[in-house]
Amino acid sequence: MSKRNLESSVTIKDIAAACNVSITTVSNVLNGKKNKVSDEIADKIRKEVERTGYRPNYLAKNLRAIASKNIGIIAEDLIVFSAPSIIEGIMNCCEEHGYNVVIENMRLFGRWSGRWMHDEALFQSALQPVLAKMDAMNVDGIIYVGGHEHTVNKLESVNNLPIVMSYAIAADQKIPTFRLDDVSGGYDVTKYLVSKGHKRIGIIAGEKDNTHTINRIIGIQKAMFEEGILFDPSLVEYSTWNKQGGYNGMKALMDKDVTAVFCMSDAIAAGAYSFLKENGLTPGEDISVMGYDNQEISSYLTPEVTTMALPLEEIGYAAADKIIEMVTSPLSSKDEVTDIRIKSKLIERKSVKSI
Amino acid sequence: MSKRNLESSVTIKDIAAACNVSITTVSNVLNGKKNKVSDEIADKIRKEVERTGYRPNYLAKNLRAIASKNIGIIAEDLIVFSAPSIIEGIMNCCEEHGYNVVIENMRLFGRWSGRWMHDEALFQSALQPVLAKMDAMNVDGIIYVGGHEHTVNKLESVNNLPIVMSYAIAADQKIPTFRLDDVSGGYDVTKYLVSKGHKRIGIIAGEKDNTHTINRIIGIQKAMFEEGILFDPSLVEYSTWNKQGGYNGMKALMDKDVTAVFCMSDAIAAGAYSFLKENGLTPGEDISVMGYDNQEISSYLTPEVTTMALPLEEIGYAAADKIIEMVTSPLSSKDEVTDIRIKSKLIERKSVKSI
Repeated sequence: MSKRNLESSVTIKDIAAACNVSITTVSNVLNGKKNKVSDEIADKIRKEVERTGYRPNYLAKNLRAIASKNIGIIAEDLIVFSAPSIIEGIMNCCEEHGYNVVIENMRLFGRWSGRWMHDEALFQSALQPVLAKMDAMNVDGIIYVGGHEHTVNKLESVNNLPIVMSYAIAADQKIPTFRLDDVSGGYDVTKYLVSKGHKRIGIIAGEKDNTHTINRIIGIQKAMFEEGILFDPSLVEYSTWNKQGGYNGMKALMDKDVTAVFCMSDAIAAGAYSFLKENGLTPGEDISVMGYDNQEISSYLTPEVTTMALPLEEIGYAAADKIIEMVTSPLSSKDEVTDIRIKSKLIERKSVKSI
Repeated sequence: MSKRNLESSVTIKDIAAACNVSITTVSNVLNGKKNKVSDEIADKIRKEVERTGYRPNYLAKNLRAIASKNIGIIAEDLIVFSAPSIIEGIMNCCEEHGYNVVIENMRLFGRWSGRWMHDEALFQSALQPVLAKMDAMNVDGIIYVGGHEHTVNKLESVNNLPIVMSYAIAADQKIPTFRLDDVSGGYDVTKYLVSKGHKRIGIIAGEKDNTHTINRIIGIQKAMFEEGILFDPSLVEYSTWNKQGGYNGMKALMDKDVTAVFCMSDAIAAGAYSFLKENGLTPGEDISVMGYDNQEISSYLTPEVTTMALPLEEIGYAAADKIIEMVTSPLSSKDEVTDIRIKSKLIERKSVKSI
């Protein structure tokens, strides 16, 4: 950092004055819009920037010439499969509205695997610094991107920045939420299986206390009630969301003559597939299997898994649309509670058979 | 943005003076370190911030009290499977060295699918603005995260910020590169297959002009030469990197009595699996199949695919380590060319049989 004068208090005005050009000309050069400025002047400006150690601040609102509209994204972890698609939806919407995006990655799983979920202090030790950064980075609003649906405490901005949740919930109910409609997800899957003639349906769910699990079960019960099918708790296997969970769940359901199994993730479905194949049974033939998430694996398994596509980009887009509304008209809809649940879409493939 | 005075030239010093506290105290409050400051004073400071419309700039080097060391990441696209893991490696290293990370996502695939790869103007229209932002955001250095290995032109910073490439190459050879060692990858796979008794090995590669394809083929040829096996070009099927490519490639190789197939991605392996199964053959039994990438799908297919794990976090970590070295000692190793190739690791599963 030799070249740079860390204590520099030089402003873009000083650079412009010294080079005898407008602030806009300086900012054009600093922003790489070289075509708009003659090489000679651009060179002169670069030399002056070099000499004074001046370094512009893209995010600062008070440098009007290079000010920009910024939305901050706080992601729980980019390595969670859902995060990049949600962020894609957010950035798509922000681009349409001429907003720039700043991404902060808390790396909750990368640093602590699942430990943070049961350690509020650990979680807050990651959250509070990024909230402080958002306040300090002059963003206009914050979108929180969860790795799964859970409640986030102490979400507040010192500068009173507006905040919107995507794929997670805030303890502060005034913070708008955009999340999965898991009740309708469980409902739609069950209605679909019943439409294929299945009445004795096994369920390999996620953890018992997981919001996605709980809401999907409610949807299943709703559909079964409508169809006049008794809900049999002994056909529900609570497991982990991964392949091993599906393997164990399928094993436990084997002697209960189910004709179809609703797996609450494609990873669970993959585990069910393995167990069935190990025991000489063909998924989609001997026992129908329904997945959830529409992750890549669901189209790679044989037979391809009929599943539910998560509306991740939609959730991101809607959250961005909301934060931009809050940023541009801060006084509108102050007190109304916004909790939008977005439906998953059924992707019919080859793992469910009509009986 | 009602509350904010966009033309504000208030500094943290003014806030400190008005509240009759130190700059550090103000920054503690702005950074949410409330425990260090009495509620009464914190409140007083927040009121003054509110009144003056002052908004701190987290990234600005000249606000010493809240200055921080920043590395900028330019990602070609977060939705590419390799990006989150590379970024995890970068952030892991940066955290160890007390560096903050700023992420810019160019969304090349999200916006234009593959089109940008053959349209330099389109690519530059995404690259130049983020380079300008990096210059403007006061980062100390930039790490470029490619979605696959290709050459990037016009990578330059107006402020002469140091740049390091990860998973891509810069046309400017003075820019250090950290990438896959594809030659040793192809070599290791071939040596492994030969060690299992396979001599007639089919290859389902990616596109002919893709760097990963080209280098892995060279590694295969090296190993075959050492093993005294004639390299038969008619056993190489160039395809796309996806499932369909693998399906077509396997189909084309069917009548060439290969005992093993080296698929250059797990997605290609999945396609080969489908074709084999459709034709009543068992992967890993009738024909051995080797994948590449160690993507999630490789452990979900039946039988689980023996594959090569990409050293994505290592690549990110090494790139971050290098940029921090360049930032902290800008004059060291100015002219030496750095091009580090990092090896993939063989993950033995169940898709390759000894014959």
